[in-house]
Amino acid sequence: MNDPEDWRILEINSLFRNPHIAVFQERVILPGESRVRDWTVVRRKQAVVIAPLTSDGKFVLIHQARIPVRKFLWEFPAGQIDDSLQPASEMIRETALRELTEETGYSLIAGGNLTYLGHYYSSQGYSDETPHLFLARPVQPTGFGQKPHESESIVECREFSLEELSSMIAENVIQDANTLALFARLSARKFIP
Amino acid sequence: MNDPEDWRILEINSLFRNPHIAVFQERVILPGESRVRDWTVVRRKQAVVIAPLTSDGKFVLIHQARIPVRKFLWEFPAGQIDDSLQPASEMIRETALRELTEETGYSLIAGGNLTYLGHYYSSQGYSDETPHLFLARPVQPTGFGQKPHESESIVECREFSLEELSSMIAENVIQDANTLALFARLSARKFIP
Repeated sequence: MNDPEDWRILEINSLFRNPHIAVFQERVILPGESRVRDWTVVRRKQAVVIAPLTSDGKFVLIHQARIPVRKFLWEFPAGQIDDSLQPASEMIRETALRELTEETGYSLIAGGNLTYLGHYYSSQGYSDETPHLFLARPVQPTGFGQKPHESESIVECREFSLEELSSMIAENVIQDANTLALFARLSARKFIP
Repeated sequence: MNDPEDWRILEINSLFRNPHIAVFQERVILPGESRVRDWTVVRRKQAVVIAPLTSDGKFVLIHQARIPVRKFLWEFPAGQIDDSLQPASEMIRETALRELTEETGYSLIAGGNLTYLGHYYSSQGYSDETPHLFLARPVQPTGFGQKPHESESIVECREFSLEELSSMIAENVIQDANTLALFARLSARKFIP
């Protein structure tokens, strides 16, 4: 059923588009059904999220303004993949390494590893947005500081122990899907004890 | 900085609206800045996600068609809160209990608990969508089966052990933010060993 060829896409109409989102009305028939369904879909660029881990076991998080929710949130660094809707894995990895350095001012040490932990869908009921999840370890400060994109507002970058990160998740301080989804993958993959 | 009164909202213009999403262009000044920022924001109804746990420690998941990503995904039951953009906590809890029964055909046994585990933002960079997370335990089949909304396509409902759920997360089978975020909260709150 997850073979894309089993999905019958009858019609896709553009409803709205600007540089940040594209909204479509889709008419589809699901695998194994005959009924026609009309669905509103927001399409977005793919993205990366990185859990940066230092050699002494600290996670690097940034504190960032998030306009849609009127809050500053502590999050793992993340960013969109700019150049392609279907990026190759090498481009996804390059974007992860670049966002890590730009947003935190840390980078992998020589011989360090960028481990792919799969992807997730941020809101699969109405959007195709797909962040790809990575563990980067060990990382260390580059010495050149952060260089965030002009549109971003990162006000702080700090290291947190696993205990601190777990407490922030337990206490509803960590509130973004990126950090929570990556924590779940790290946990299920036994990177977190 | 997370006091909403510190955010200066200069202008909000509607760009697109249908029954499922509303898109706005917002002009804001962040707390502590003087610079004006223009941002595209998708506003959506709030939502609930429920981890249903049986008395013998099995999690109940549904297998559901997700049109935006052209896949059937295994997920915790979830749903939107229909009647209000700023729902009261009692309405959020009622929606959680209703979605649990409608989507899985299970409900809390008498004396069972619906535990609130906070909220998260599915994609805080462009959307205000806010799912609220719950643990429902213990649950058991109602005997009346599922009654999903007419628009949904739930093809299966099954119980999974913690080991099975962890493996599905580790192996990239679980791909939705709802299930991953709730697993992270359960894990950090020590509901998962």
